Amino acid sequence: MHVVVPYAPDAPKTRLKPVLSETERSTLARVMLEDVLEAVRETGREPTVLSTEPLEIDAPVTVDRRPLTEAVNAVVRSRTRSTEVKSSGSAAVAVVMADLALTTPEALERLFAPNADVVIAPGRGVGTNALVVRHPEFRVDYHGGSFLDHRRIADDIGATLETVDSFRLGADIDEPADLVEVLAHGTGRTADCLREFGFELDSTEGRLEVVRSVEP
Amino acid sequence: MHVVVPYAPDAPKTRLKPVLSETERSTLARVMLEDVLEAVRETGREPTVLSTEPLEIDAPVTVDRRPLTEAVNAVVRSRTRSTEVKSSGSAAVAVVMADLALTTPEALERLFAPNADVVIAPGRGVGTNALVVRHPEFRVDYHGGSFLDHRRIADDIGATLETVDSFRLGADIDEPADLVEVLAHGTGRTADCLREFGFELDSTEGRLEVVRSVEP
Repeated sequence: MHVVVPYAPDAPKTRLKPVLSETERSTLARVMLEDVLEAVRETGREPTVLSTEPLEIDAPVTVDRRPLTEAVNAVVRSRTRSTEVKSSGSAAVAVVMADLALTTPEALERLFAPNADVVIAPGRGVGTNALVVRHPEFRVDYHGGSFLDHRRIADDIGATLETVDSFRLGADIDEPADLVEVLAHGTGRTADCLREFGFELDSTEGRLEVVRSVEP
Repeated sequence: MHVVVPYAPDAPKTRLKPVLSETERSTLARVMLEDVLEAVRETGREPTVLSTEPLEIDAPVTVDRRPLTEAVNAVVRSRTRSTEVKSSGSAAVAVVMADLALTTPEALERLFAPNADVVIAPGRGVGTNALVVRHPEFRVDYHGGSFLDHRRIADDIGATLETVDSFRLGADIDEPADLVEVLAHGTGRTADCLREFGFELDSTEGRLEVVRSVEP
């Protein structure tokens, strides 16, 4: 299975602006990417970063400056149609988002395991946080509510679809409220990074919140 | 296993006030409860409603007017300590929240399966959406961030703890944004109820939203 992790170094996590400086958002995005890559490697697979820009990182990098949907479809097309790849029995492509900071190897194994034409781990807001494609005619279409479109596309081409019921894969880290989840459930370096930035969990007001002891 | 579903008919889903009338919130809360009970039954178990008030419903109802934590702890204490129950080998209590409208029998089986002293399906915001208790000294403490306290309590008494990685069990329906998840992923009557109220998914603005064709 070819595992791709899309990454856009130039637009780091703009919805975290209220709580993080631009440099911090870049650092956080990068650490989340590294956590995701590490989790993929722990499943015994070698991930490739699909980046909008050249990147210094300890992993193969494919640069594609086009929007996410086009870049991912180019990979899906080339892998699921290549006769060479097909005859080796590995014509499956997995696309795992770079901001799934709660990802564990166990959660990814649940994504990789089902033998369906399309496997999706939906994200909050009905997104597609991670998917596996084994059908040569399937194409992605990333946008709000993409899970519904992906389900429809699979149906249109007669592809079998399975969904993976995972809290960890469902939690993309986009907004300040999401940082609570990382501090509580994170098992990788992202939680350490947030603690180094001065974030900690606080429940003195009855409701759990993330507070910051130092300003950006 | 004794499965309890706590329910408070008098305070129906106040955070949904911006989009639903009081009567509608009552109806929705009730339909979500029934979906949860049905999912429990489909696993072959008979759920009991733990209600703050007497309730007409097709299930056994235990009325306990005390706050959630005290009411649940009374059940946990009585089941895990009773010699009669213990000798029958079923001294486990499961507590499943009534607003888990995405719950399926498959998700519940993943909660019921592990043989740990305590099993938790965390919710968004680090809550405890569903748990199983097999240890006589474990006590719940429901509030913001209860997952962290439950983990600490298990640790303090030397109880083994497993977490269940489930998007469905992690999604309690509290806020208007949560209705999108029900319409996209719901498999029970709650999604139908929202459609009858006039809600539908709309992605014309690029981002998926729930819109309402009729006013409350």
